[in-house]
Amino acid sequence: MKVDIEKLQKIVGKEHVSDNIADLYAYSSDASVHQALPTVVVRPKTIEEVQEIVKYANKKKIPVIPRGAGSGTSGHAVPIDGGIVLDMKRMNRILQIEPADMLVKVEPGVVDDDLNRTLKPYGLFYPPAPASSRIATIGGEIAANASGVRSVKYGATRDYVMGMKVVLADGSLVNLGANTRVHSSGYQLERLIVGSEGTLGIVVEATMRIYPLPKYRCLGVANFDKLEDAGNTISEIISSGAQPSMLELMDGIGIIAVNKALDLGLKEVGAIILFEADGNVKEAVEYEIKKMKDICEKYNGYDIEMSYDAKERQRIFGGRKKLFASLSKYQEGIICTDLADDMGVPNSKIAECAKKIHEIAEKNNVIMAVYGHCGSGVIHTKIMLDPKTQSQWDDADHVIEQLYDYVHSVGGVTSAEHGIGLSKAPAWKKARKDILPMMRAIKKALDPNNILNPHKLMDAPDDWIHATELRYRVGV
Amino acid sequence: MKVDIEKLQKIVGKEHVSDNIADLYAYSSDASVHQALPTVVVRPKTIEEVQEIVKYANKKKIPVIPRGAGSGTSGHAVPIDGGIVLDMKRMNRILQIEPADMLVKVEPGVVDDDLNRTLKPYGLFYPPAPASSRIATIGGEIAANASGVRSVKYGATRDYVMGMKVVLADGSLVNLGANTRVHSSGYQLERLIVGSEGTLGIVVEATMRIYPLPKYRCLGVANFDKLEDAGNTISEIISSGAQPSMLELMDGIGIIAVNKALDLGLKEVGAIILFEADGNVKEAVEYEIKKMKDICEKYNGYDIEMSYDAKERQRIFGGRKKLFASLSKYQEGIICTDLADDMGVPNSKIAECAKKIHEIAEKNNVIMAVYGHCGSGVIHTKIMLDPKTQSQWDDADHVIEQLYDYVHSVGGVTSAEHGIGLSKAPAWKKARKDILPMMRAIKKALDPNNILNPHKLMDAPDDWIHATELRYRVGV
Repeated sequence: MKVDIEKLQKIVGKEHVSDNIADLYAYSSDASVHQALPTVVVRPKTIEEVQEIVKYANKKKIPVIPRGAGSGTSGHAVPIDGGIVLDMKRMNRILQIEPADMLVKVEPGVVDDDLNRTLKPYGLFYPPAPASSRIATIGGEIAANASGVRSVKYGATRDYVMGMKVVLADGSLVNLGANTRVHSSGYQLERLIVGSEGTLGIVVEATMRIYPLPKYRCLGVANFDKLEDAGNTISEIISSGAQPSMLELMDGIGIIAVNKALDLGLKEVGAIILFEADGNVKEAVEYEIKKMKDICEKYNGYDIEMSYDAKERQRIFGGRKKLFASLSKYQEGIICTDLADDMGVPNSKIAECAKKIHEIAEKNNVIMAVYGHCGSGVIHTKIMLDPKTQSQWDDADHVIEQLYDYVHSVGGVTSAEHGIGLSKAPAWKKARKDILPMMRAIKKALDPNNILNPHKLMDAPDDWIHATELRYRVGV
Repeated sequence: MKVDIEKLQKIVGKEHVSDNIADLYAYSSDASVHQALPTVVVRPKTIEEVQEIVKYANKKKIPVIPRGAGSGTSGHAVPIDGGIVLDMKRMNRILQIEPADMLVKVEPGVVDDDLNRTLKPYGLFYPPAPASSRIATIGGEIAANASGVRSVKYGATRDYVMGMKVVLADGSLVNLGANTRVHSSGYQLERLIVGSEGTLGIVVEATMRIYPLPKYRCLGVANFDKLEDAGNTISEIISSGAQPSMLELMDGIGIIAVNKALDLGLKEVGAIILFEADGNVKEAVEYEIKKMKDICEKYNGYDIEMSYDAKERQRIFGGRKKLFASLSKYQEGIICTDLADDMGVPNSKIAECAKKIHEIAEKNNVIMAVYGHCGSGVIHTKIMLDPKTQSQWDDADHVIEQLYDYVHSVGGVTSAEHGIGLSKAPAWKKARKDILPMMRAIKKALDPNNILNPHKLMDAPDDWIHATELRYRVGV
């Protein structure tokens, strides 16, 4: 692909454009299984620079792939057709904190944890918090509609977007949404952009709702011998009307993995549940915690620990936060792939789905941990396999098919918070045929030259395994 | 316009199609100032009937205007080009209540209060509640992204939509969204439909999130001599991090009107604030109520009453709920028009905006009450004028221009929860020029023949007063 490097250097400065092979390699993958080299990497600093780059690309029909931290697990940031990878991390200013209006204005490259560190002295916080919040950018979280551990009470990124500035495919800049808590002034385009994975526009500024930090947080943990009991506990907590601010599940495989990686000495039981309540009044937090504890006990939960203390909570929660990384230590020679890693199911199906995952894993010779923000119906897993054995990739393919067939049959979704990208596209396209034409019509209307993160989502290839190179050495 | 009445009768049954002039007249207006006769009124009962009607209309390029209760204040349901008014009220079944998944599935014609009456025995409720909830349908609330008195805590309709079935302009049926609390599985089309005022598709089923009913609700009311003090109280309550479940303002004009209409005997002060907190633990509700009461007192609020009792709360709140209707009794010979009736401003601007409204009213010889869900930044008003005097309509025009210029200059929105329709389109189009092409591109992509509620929102006429007949006798 012919890209005018000098032209791009003129826009953003020489040091912020690279087609050096080492840089291209570094930008060729994200946390997914995919890998494809971009033609060039560009790191803009201003809205005007983004506009100029996109205008040029649109004229020349060069793909533009916006990228935050590269922590996405579905391949959104992998430049399947080459082109310009637009690294948004230099646009990382927090532009405005407005407690009177309970909003914050940020550039897309602001890191989630950095935002929360900055908000803390104001007694405020930004609730969506994926496990990768230490590196994940707000722009990336918008692209994937990230949600994280507190979504059970606080919702997903889509619930926080009040407004945004977006550069469209023709390089024009639009101001979407409002500075107000509610609005009914035209299409809610700011919410259409959330979860669109960089295919409709490039977010260059976001106005996000924030919340007052609660005075009290109490975190509990309960052990279960049977995964099924833990799953049923979660369903009943939700249907009881309890209001957890966190409700997480981790199965025995996950526990073994974090013990191995972090030497935590957790009891290696069938499953644990983490449950948290927050609020400004201790009696209210205690009421919610007791309600959840009672349900845990009803389903044979035991050795229940609870703490209001921040350090203690950190210790209890530490394993869960680092589970994803820890899983790679589960067994020598086994890698942990982000395939079928992020289903959403109705709350009433948590136990059934968890059991099904273990059954399907066993049948197909792979290992699968079950964990996630199950209070929001989010079930995470990883397909853990030996990447050097070709047949293990076929095993993965079978798991994906069987698992999604189940998830879709119970009214679940392909992805709860990681997005479709490349890896989840084949199963999702099969399940949601009816909405593809509508999505394609909107895409075509807003990006007629198909330059914005092309061939993702509804336009992704039907075969994930050959969509790009895999970023593992297969069969070596 | 030529419409094949027999064809439509075949689809829905003879008794559900009418081109009788009395029926057409009944369907010619909503709660806005506008009036235009449809060609025919059709009242479908099933999804398939809606599909067939739309397919026929699309082939013949006949406008289709979906209509709920007709309680909209902006003219969404007024058939500006004639055509088929689709009365959705016969599709009024509650299809599924699922406490385990905290969701309800409804047909679009279900009335808000009916839904809440049905949910109550389950200990559940559907929070969005416009003042018109006694008649407003869920479909209409989706079309306008309605929010209402509890939006300060619970958000707007867009925050409740999990999924929906929508009939598109070509008659095809799509299933948008999910049965899960969060999803990242394709464009959030279900949220694009919210607030689209019937221009992108016809909602034929909706899956909405519900909440457990709180055990305690405490409602307080405070009197203020100065409207400005009341406005500042609201701003400070929000920035303090308090969590009201309702935070309403009503000015002196509003108080006089409800006294006249309902004989309530309220003290005729400069303004009142209604503040509510809810929760499952009384200590927590008391904490929030005390915090709000203290701020009221700081800004000279007095005669503060508070009650947990449902009947007492009803008495306190009754006036606010019926304010809109009561305003028509404010003064003999004066009507109450829904023009510039629903601004949204940042919370920090409530007092300033309220003052500005009174100033602009006085300058232009009209009366304007100020009230609304000010905790969410929603400021309602009505332009009250003598409809028989032609110059009063010019006065209204000046008010609209001056008021919106102010609202937009402070980062506010044209409409917070009533929608743009016809009446708010000229001011909104002027303020939001940058997003019109994007909206038009999406509209054209999804409705190429422009049959779904045409000439509303971004395609509405630039002059509201001549867009249709007015439903008042002017100059008589």
